[in-house]
Amino acid sequence: MKDKKHSPVGFGDTSLFLPNVSIDCVVIGFDLKQLQILLLKLKEHDLWMLPGGFIHLDEDMDQAATRILEERTGIKLPYLKQFHTFGDVNRNKKSTFPAVDRKSEIEFKKMLDFVKQRFISSGYLSLVDMQSCAPTPDALSDQCTWKPVKQLPQLLYDHQEIVEKAMEQLRSRINYMPVGNSLLPEKFTMKEFQTLYEQILSRSLDRGNFQKKMLKLGFLDRHEKQLTGGAHKAPYLYSFNKKRYNELVKQGIGYIS
Amino acid sequence: MKDKKHSPVGFGDTSLFLPNVSIDCVVIGFDLKQLQILLLKLKEHDLWMLPGGFIHLDEDMDQAATRILEERTGIKLPYLKQFHTFGDVNRNKKSTFPAVDRKSEIEFKKMLDFVKQRFISSGYLSLVDMQSCAPTPDALSDQCTWKPVKQLPQLLYDHQEIVEKAMEQLRSRINYMPVGNSLLPEKFTMKEFQTLYEQILSRSLDRGNFQKKMLKLGFLDRHEKQLTGGAHKAPYLYSFNKKRYNELVKQGIGYIS
Repeated sequence: MKDKKHSPVGFGDTSLFLPNVSIDCVVIGFDLKQLQILLLKLKEHDLWMLPGGFIHLDEDMDQAATRILEERTGIKLPYLKQFHTFGDVNRNKKSTFPAVDRKSEIEFKKMLDFVKQRFISSGYLSLVDMQSCAPTPDALSDQCTWKPVKQLPQLLYDHQEIVEKAMEQLRSRINYMPVGNSLLPEKFTMKEFQTLYEQILSRSLDRGNFQKKMLKLGFLDRHEKQLTGGAHKAPYLYSFNKKRYNELVKQGIGYIS
Repeated sequence: MKDKKHSPVGFGDTSLFLPNVSIDCVVIGFDLKQLQILLLKLKEHDLWMLPGGFIHLDEDMDQAATRILEERTGIKLPYLKQFHTFGDVNRNKKSTFPAVDRKSEIEFKKMLDFVKQRFISSGYLSLVDMQSCAPTPDALSDQCTWKPVKQLPQLLYDHQEIVEKAMEQLRSRINYMPVGNSLLPEKFTMKEFQTLYEQILSRSLDRGNFQKKMLKLGFLDRHEKQLTGGAHKAPYLYSFNKKRYNELVKQGIGYIS
């Protein structure tokens, strides 16, 4: 049973939350063609938002991020990384929360009053394998679904800016460490791997160069082709060499040796 | 004259500040031998801290960082970069603020009550040329001075952790972009440049390799030696080629082309 004090976002006593500070989660997946982001749609309104919420008074901010994502989307992730905190004074005036006319939902109205404060919001980023996630909307939402990062619907407040900042950080991170372990299925083709990089960088890469560089770094294992009819035309499958991959993530792929 | 509403940290009406959110500034300099950090010492106490403060209700968080640093150290910097937000529930219980017995300082006592709240603190990092800064303590402090990053005194709360996180970010940043433009004087020797990198990375680098790589990246201009007696023994001086430097900072020095 859930701890009574730790009721889901939008329900329960808002006085248990730390005022003025919120959390927004940017969960990125890859469907082997393009990057996708997990969004919630508010019930009865055409309003999309990042899965977000508030910090309990007795809870570390990092713990809150994990709890909030699980409560709002049903997804439990071991690893959410804080990437930036958004503190503009007008950030939640960029779009308003819709009025709620369902009289029965007193708790929800209380939450809307709480939400009107000024909030500094910490963005948390997670990269996930879409196949292993089953997003489920929470009680405030009627949809919890993947949307292409490049075709976002109108988002609440400054959430579009939060997504852009997350993508910017991902682009700069890819410059000094390999990315993909958590976004790709266990086995993938070199073309799928290149597509992932192209989607993150928003530009085309040369196929020969890309393959040569990635193989040279030694974090990909190539699997032998299955000997079935016509299989020689099938592309090689690769998987991450976890030991080497983790070494590179730790030490970075730098220009200084 | 200063806007009355915007009174310096530690004075004035604490109700003008956003509760629960603070800012701490990590200002790093380089004395051509080691990295130095700017610290404040609280008046009449042996307590050192990062220059920090609170956000006005009508102020963006980034603006607050610039104002706070100037109010607390006299240093006006055009560029402070947010690097991480610290949100552990016990972060300000790691050391306590000392009791204040100077009865006259009612405002200061009010501030101490305000300070007892739980704060989420955003860390801002700046790299500066020490020679161009003249740090001055504010009214709460009797010292505002540089201390070697590797020999920190006991710091308030989790400020040591904040410094360590800033250094970690600097180390990872150096892996994909050149660093030094703001830390070094206009002209410097290759040895001084290498020492800076070694201090940031906390390890020795091979002299020949380092020089070769840095020159190959093309962001250093070499200056002709002055023709004075014995000058041929003096090392070459270098300066940053700002155009090329900014290009590299923008695009990163990646392994993907």
